[in-house]
Amino acid sequence: MRRTIATVSLSGTLPEKLEAIAAARFDGIELFENDFVNYRGSAAQVRAMVADLGLTIDLYQPFRDFEGMPEAQFQRSLDRAERKFDLMQELDVSMVLCCSNTSPLTIDDPELAAAQLHELASRAASRNLRIGFEALAWGRKTNLYGQAWDIVRRADHPHLGLILDSFHTLSLKDDPTGIADIPGHKIFFLQMADAPLLSMDVLQWARHYRSFPGQGQFDMANFLEQVLLAGYTGPLSLEIFNDVFRETPNRRIAVDAMRSLLYLESQVRGSLEAPSAQDSKPDPTKYAEQRERVLQRIELYSPPPLPDIAGLSYIEFAADEASAEAFGKLLQRLGFRRAGKHRSKAVVLYRQGEINLIVNAQPNSFARARFETHGLSVCALAVRTADPERAVGRATAMHSKRYDGPVGPSEQHVPAIVSPGGSLVSFVSSDLGPNGLYEADFVLDDAPEGTAPGAGLEQIDHVALGLAVDQLDTWILFSRAVLGLEPGESLELADPFGLVRSRGLANADRSMRLVLNVSPGQRTRTARTVAAGGGVTFHHIALNCNDIFDTVARMRTNGVRFVPISENYYDDLLTRVDLDQDLLTRMRSAGVLFDRSQAGDYFHIYTESIDDGLFFEVVQRVNAYDGYGATNAPARMASQAQGTA
Amino acid sequence: MRRTIATVSLSGTLPEKLEAIAAARFDGIELFENDFVNYRGSAAQVRAMVADLGLTIDLYQPFRDFEGMPEAQFQRSLDRAERKFDLMQELDVSMVLCCSNTSPLTIDDPELAAAQLHELASRAASRNLRIGFEALAWGRKTNLYGQAWDIVRRADHPHLGLILDSFHTLSLKDDPTGIADIPGHKIFFLQMADAPLLSMDVLQWARHYRSFPGQGQFDMANFLEQVLLAGYTGPLSLEIFNDVFRETPNRRIAVDAMRSLLYLESQVRGSLEAPSAQDSKPDPTKYAEQRERVLQRIELYSPPPLPDIAGLSYIEFAADEASAEAFGKLLQRLGFRRAGKHRSKAVVLYRQGEINLIVNAQPNSFARARFETHGLSVCALAVRTADPERAVGRATAMHSKRYDGPVGPSEQHVPAIVSPGGSLVSFVSSDLGPNGLYEADFVLDDAPEGTAPGAGLEQIDHVALGLAVDQLDTWILFSRAVLGLEPGESLELADPFGLVRSRGLANADRSMRLVLNVSPGQRTRTARTVAAGGGVTFHHIALNCNDIFDTVARMRTNGVRFVPISENYYDDLLTRVDLDQDLLTRMRSAGVLFDRSQAGDYFHIYTESIDDGLFFEVVQRVNAYDGYGATNAPARMASQAQGTA
Repeated sequence: MRRTIATVSLSGTLPEKLEAIAAARFDGIELFENDFVNYRGSAAQVRAMVADLGLTIDLYQPFRDFEGMPEAQFQRSLDRAERKFDLMQELDVSMVLCCSNTSPLTIDDPELAAAQLHELASRAASRNLRIGFEALAWGRKTNLYGQAWDIVRRADHPHLGLILDSFHTLSLKDDPTGIADIPGHKIFFLQMADAPLLSMDVLQWARHYRSFPGQGQFDMANFLEQVLLAGYTGPLSLEIFNDVFRETPNRRIAVDAMRSLLYLESQVRGSLEAPSAQDSKPDPTKYAEQRERVLQRIELYSPPPLPDIAGLSYIEFAADEASAEAFGKLLQRLGFRRAGKHRSKAVVLYRQGEINLIVNAQPNSFARARFETHGLSVCALAVRTADPERAVGRATAMHSKRYDGPVGPSEQHVPAIVSPGGSLVSFVSSDLGPNGLYEADFVLDDAPEGTAPGAGLEQIDHVALGLAVDQLDTWILFSRAVLGLEPGESLELADPFGLVRSRGLANADRSMRLVLNVSPGQRTRTARTVAAGGGVTFHHIALNCNDIFDTVARMRTNGVRFVPISENYYDDLLTRVDLDQDLLTRMRSAGVLFDRSQAGDYFHIYTESIDDGLFFEVVQRVNAYDGYGATNAPARMASQAQGTA
Repeated sequence: MRRTIATVSLSGTLPEKLEAIAAARFDGIELFENDFVNYRGSAAQVRAMVADLGLTIDLYQPFRDFEGMPEAQFQRSLDRAERKFDLMQELDVSMVLCCSNTSPLTIDDPELAAAQLHELASRAASRNLRIGFEALAWGRKTNLYGQAWDIVRRADHPHLGLILDSFHTLSLKDDPTGIADIPGHKIFFLQMADAPLLSMDVLQWARHYRSFPGQGQFDMANFLEQVLLAGYTGPLSLEIFNDVFRETPNRRIAVDAMRSLLYLESQVRGSLEAPSAQDSKPDPTKYAEQRERVLQRIELYSPPPLPDIAGLSYIEFAADEASAEAFGKLLQRLGFRRAGKHRSKAVVLYRQGEINLIVNAQPNSFARARFETHGLSVCALAVRTADPERAVGRATAMHSKRYDGPVGPSEQHVPAIVSPGGSLVSFVSSDLGPNGLYEADFVLDDAPEGTAPGAGLEQIDHVALGLAVDQLDTWILFSRAVLGLEPGESLELADPFGLVRSRGLANADRSMRLVLNVSPGQRTRTARTVAAGGGVTFHHIALNCNDIFDTVARMRTNGVRFVPISENYYDDLLTRVDLDQDLLTRMRSAGVLFDRSQAGDYFHIYTESIDDGLFFEVVQRVNAYDGYGATNAPARMASQAQGTA
């Protein structure tokens, strides 16, 4: 499929937008009128610039308030259209988007609308141009694709067709399945826009909150499938009005845009190729025929499959000699033992339960470079998966960058990619035993398991990131399209200096969990650590145990300091939750926080931060509790703002 | 009236909030439960801290999901209430806000709700506590004050009364006039919250977008008037959930909060005292009696009246010697003449038409201090008004700070106040003639008027400010409550690097206009100049003329450089507006932009910026055009991003 994007989706001047679009390997653009009008170059210059970049202009847009108008306005609009046609020919673009009329003058008469569009199409035809008619969700009389199709059908002109936009259909909760019955050649263009589910005025929603497919909550794959089943073979395009995208460096947004289409195509391909896809359809035979036609006519993107993740193998920290020393001592207070030293590098392995933490202070390394810019921080997450090279193949197919670090003689090569913000995600074979990865590279401490009792930590529960506002959608799409994690609900947490929005992502068996935290303001602790980290920072790491009271007691004995929790918290907890008084007393005395869902309970506690940044969380999940104790984050943030005890 | 505020309205830790509230001279607080729960001090400590600051806790809030519940939940809620009563007694607070039930378990039975609230009130009464029942706009069964009053009336317990919140009533477009018929002693508490008119889910609107009275679009004065007419004599309180306030330094927000109440009281007092106020009422006799009772019982704030502004007398710029020299040359290219030099200071007056611009490079002055922190910038706006001292009195009554600068022997004293962000607003008597203000302080150039032809600039049309997001509501309230300007609609302008929101404010005769521009992102030109200006910056100054083509021609001859406008802009203009071809040609060749409203036309052009910051706009208004050419701002911003020609 051809892949195109509207210039309004990106920040920058018109040449900057075009360069970003070409760099992300799009085939063409929709030229948003204002981008041309406000550009100080001629149509001929824009045409040349587009061609030089190997792009085409697939659509000029929008042409507003045309159909169903009184005669005087109709005649003026035809004059207006002729001027636009002149311009389109200068630009070498053959199709214009005509969106349904929002004028209070609109006459509610599909025949009139059809007749006027027929006249417009006739004039366009005389120049070999085409008109695409689209139902805006806030159109005065026409706001559903079914209505727009009725008008196009009545007009019956070969130079007039339908433009579909997933946002306009799905925002009104209209059913897209009827699209599959529209003749494919009458669908001239397709715009795919996702969005979060918001309860607000649809125009405001459309103008400010659209997102790329996979970043929102609409069923994009089903919508695209219906359009393809209809027989559509035109471009797959993105027209995204998003306040944040307008502010974000356009190279990153253009990559997100391309990734979103590739991900969407791969989802639809998977759905179409599923052997039993037709079983659930009302007319399996018809569906099978339509599907066959799609698969024969169109090459949908087919990247390697999503990796099957079996948890985190290790987390690697960037350090220098001094911070590695201090951090190692903290890890030991948390019950980790120094389990090995790298054969050739200043890299130390710490272990507890199934948790591996690597502290990398090797000069002239990737980690050291991260340390120089980010301070002591996570520089890599290593993910266990059946086929690491295939996982990297998936990621690069989704336009993530492969990372190949130096490998010493007889050391393990760990395939890796660069995640948004610059840290690495490495892939480790899940076939390797607990020492499999490390014995090649590390001189392992030969203390038999169990000699150092540790503090009872068993697994990495989740990794929480702090993100700049403009990194959230980037990370959600990366997590879904590259790692196969799925997002949960978005929560708001009150920090004393502003709201923080938090969203968990996890794989199906919950062996890998990320939590993305965003602070729209500048004064929360989250915002300050994000700013210090250049837009993406690893905020805290949560580690699982089976008996949090025992674990915390051991850690306190070792000198670990935790964020103190108000006595009032426990008094209030008793009024909120039906709790055993002894358990409450234990929590109060240990400083442990508590959350309860229908599925289970969650006990947790936070360590004090290292230099006001990174900290650890110790957690214990009971039964199928699936959250992250978000309800308690305000207690933590309020306490952090009150200083150490 | 007692004035109180909910702790949730401000950022910070609980002690920080209390200190800001006391510093802004509130009488008491509503203690928001989470602020107490997450504070690491006991109830006794909070009680002592509040008392030490001279405050009281007038309300504990909220107590949720109580009324109309099945028996089992009701009994548990009574237990929950008893624990809260214990806490209230420790805190020394006698009233709790019980908000209407949002639980899906709620039973739709006002008798049951009344009976359960009666039981709650009886238990409260045994401790001499009181229950205030409030209808949440999103309450499951009770969301209007009329329903809540019906339940309170049925319950008929002296320790149960009504709590009113303007947001919950006005957001649902419910009519507040019925409030005046409720017995005043049964209204226990009053929360005043304003908000912008948004079309969105009411809960989201309420949680994120409320504002102080006078910052939004609800009719606050009418709401308060109804409550006072009912006979209410309790506190006037603010409970404002606002994402931006949560992020803003709490001292400034607390001042805004107090200013909003004083402004509101003064509006209501003015309305009640208007001789003809009863004429429009359905029952003038009843109204007159109620009004009399209010004025006898309650002292509503009575500041000096709003100043009657007769335009801007001068704008003063902060400079040093070098920048004053360069800036003076630019002013001369714009047609200003050097009209005088200050008798004792390094201050120069430039004049053209009725416009006075003062460039202040005096060492060790207020202006020089502003220059050191802000560079070449506006440091004072001087406003013409009949009684400058009364205008300052109004401002200080509204908690603006008076500014008294050094006055030399036989120099004029110009009364002034500090505006948000630190620049001055000076007040000049409108009785003074054109030289009245200046002949005392300046050695005026004795060139008779008219010898220097100038460029045809006549008046200051408007002053545009760039504001940090958290300064917008502060400036709107300051402009209304201190200067008497009224806001127009909020517009969105597309900069190539993010949206900019723009809002004009003007006095009734339009002799003074401000435009407030806010860039939520960090990458627009507006955002960068705002950041450089510390949150408030004077973005550009628009100057009026009567023949823009002549004015621009003269300026170009003088070497003034303007932001170049795309040829495409003019081609597009022709498709949008019915324009004389010759006029379009003149605009195109002059680089002049055009806007048209129902009321008239607007011609304008922007100069290039000084150091990427301040610039001038030359404007010509035709007929009653009342806007600011916002539709053309994207053309300007796009062109600025494309660099100079």
